[in-house]
Amino acid sequence: MGAFESDVVVVGAGPAGLFAVFECGMVGLKCHVIDALDAIGGQCRALYPEKPIYDIPGHPKLLAGELIERLEAQAAPFAPVYHLGRQMVSLTRDPDNVWRCGLSDGTTIRAKAVIVAAGCGAFGPNRPPLPGIERYEGDGGGVHYFVGRREDFRAKRVVIAGGGDSAVDWAISLAEIAAKVMVVHRRPKFRAAPDSEARLKALAEQGVIELVVPYQLHGIEGDGHKMTAVIVATLDGATRRLEADFLLPFFGLAMELGPIAEWGLGLERGTVTVNPATMASDTAGVFAIGDICAYPGKLKLILTAFAEAARAAHSAHSIVHPDQALHVEYSTTSGVPAG
Amino acid sequence: MGAFESDVVVVGAGPAGLFAVFECGMVGLKCHVIDALDAIGGQCRALYPEKPIYDIPGHPKLLAGELIERLEAQAAPFAPVYHLGRQMVSLTRDPDNVWRCGLSDGTTIRAKAVIVAAGCGAFGPNRPPLPGIERYEGDGGGVHYFVGRREDFRAKRVVIAGGGDSAVDWAISLAEIAAKVMVVHRRPKFRAAPDSEARLKALAEQGVIELVVPYQLHGIEGDGHKMTAVIVATLDGATRRLEADFLLPFFGLAMELGPIAEWGLGLERGTVTVNPATMASDTAGVFAIGDICAYPGKLKLILTAFAEAARAAHSAHSIVHPDQALHVEYSTTSGVPAG
Repeated sequence: MGAFESDVVVVGAGPAGLFAVFECGMVGLKCHVIDALDAIGGQCRALYPEKPIYDIPGHPKLLAGELIERLEAQAAPFAPVYHLGRQMVSLTRDPDNVWRCGLSDGTTIRAKAVIVAAGCGAFGPNRPPLPGIERYEGDGGGVHYFVGRREDFRAKRVVIAGGGDSAVDWAISLAEIAAKVMVVHRRPKFRAAPDSEARLKALAEQGVIELVVPYQLHGIEGDGHKMTAVIVATLDGATRRLEADFLLPFFGLAMELGPIAEWGLGLERGTVTVNPATMASDTAGVFAIGDICAYPGKLKLILTAFAEAARAAHSAHSIVHPDQALHVEYSTTSGVPAG
Repeated sequence: MGAFESDVVVVGAGPAGLFAVFECGMVGLKCHVIDALDAIGGQCRALYPEKPIYDIPGHPKLLAGELIERLEAQAAPFAPVYHLGRQMVSLTRDPDNVWRCGLSDGTTIRAKAVIVAAGCGAFGPNRPPLPGIERYEGDGGGVHYFVGRREDFRAKRVVIAGGGDSAVDWAISLAEIAAKVMVVHRRPKFRAAPDSEARLKALAEQGVIELVVPYQLHGIEGDGHKMTAVIVATLDGATRRLEADFLLPFFGLAMELGPIAEWGLGLERGTVTVNPATMASDTAGVFAIGDICAYPGKLKLILTAFAEAARAAHSAHSIVHPDQALHVEYSTTSGVPAG
């Protein structure tokens, strides 16, 4: 929570967003950075931190996670303010023409320029296609995609859906404190570590966990605020009703464009069309860089995003300081501010 | 000397050219690289190898010379062939539509695609504006801008022109073996290291070196092949005639576009206009990247040149292999060839 003013808001803390912070800093602009993930780094850190990247210029081989550490260090002298684990849900113009960015936790940040570096969108859980599920998501409803506090599940009836590590590991863990744990999976075979799967099956044989297989999620029952049961079905259409306080669907993370699609930025197939000479979208003061932007000849490479970040920073400067001409200074001459 | 065939010729071995080799390699194209300097690295190595650069993405601080070493290592798996210390003097099309690059030493390289990454042009000595000086340049003529073999000056009469370190240091050195050393400078004060200047003046007092100050170069006498004397003049127009076998003008290095201007690439104010979606010049099969290229919104930054190199490599691929579709592969997936 809180209300902030900034020169620039950068949406997305992946490599493009982090380097935008640096380039904005080089032209004297301060940044607030928003990311839905709990940590900076975007895909690089969330999906493949230990995968080597070979095409970062000047790095014959670099782990993705290491790239993020280096970009963070490079941006650090410019003291960016990170708002992590929060989605940017709204982008509106205030009467004084300054952009107002609204975050999922109620935080607002006002800035003259916004650089959207959101990649393929925000990471979010794969939501099972159950009618009305969103009404039961969040506090009190019963549907959770992450386990925040394990204690919340003590003495409760929990339905876990999925066959991967998250589903299996949480089933084992919550079985220790929950009143009942049911695991819904569409086939008897799980995709979890063999040792975990063996423990799950042992607990099932002891009657501590109930394996509801082969079943899939079919529906949720409740009063519209709090769920009371999960309906599951076989491929043949036979259904069962599982009375439960909680449903934990663990179907992996996906990237979804999310609220960005509603900001009026002229998106086409999930990308924001920009003028490559400025990285400006068709909305004045809003720029897009990295995988989310599109223009003729665009290559979806991290190194391309870096150049786009530099371009966007210069363009943002002309929005934030329309009265000041900007001369390109070489970093060899100007250096960066002392830490 | 020699005649080669390549997929791509890269003109210029600065950071843009080196990274173009890497990016071409990533799409399966082999490169020959030409540079007028004796070593790769362009300005980074020739002018400021020990200056730190702060805006190379993922390198909070990197010496320019170190950047070049890293880019060389990154390009190495693709086995580029370097032609150094040679200028590319001509670019013509063969009857089969393949480009023929002619080098100053007579080497020819044929390639379907040419990527011009020549920065501000080739480095060369600042040539004093003496009518007909070019007739006395090179072997046997007497005018040299570099000292190749010191022994060549034994027992000869040498005129050195200039007031910087090169002029002073070579005067001191050659005084040991030459019959006579005369130093022409337009004022009594030299811009050399104080210690060197003191030694020069001491040698002048001993009569070992003659300081011809305040004089400027005015003309060269000779038979059109071999020089016989240097004419010098004061600002007032008074002249002196210095009989000599050699003239060594040390007026520093300059970058000059040189022969590139004659390749018909549509240059404007020393830059090649390109389509930023492809990096293509108006000449089919010829691309330009880095400081030498121009398009709307162009930023003259090394990191921008890297992105341009990737773009040009993809475009070159479509010229070299017009029948093969190119899918962007992430280096995390494809890796690079084993060394």
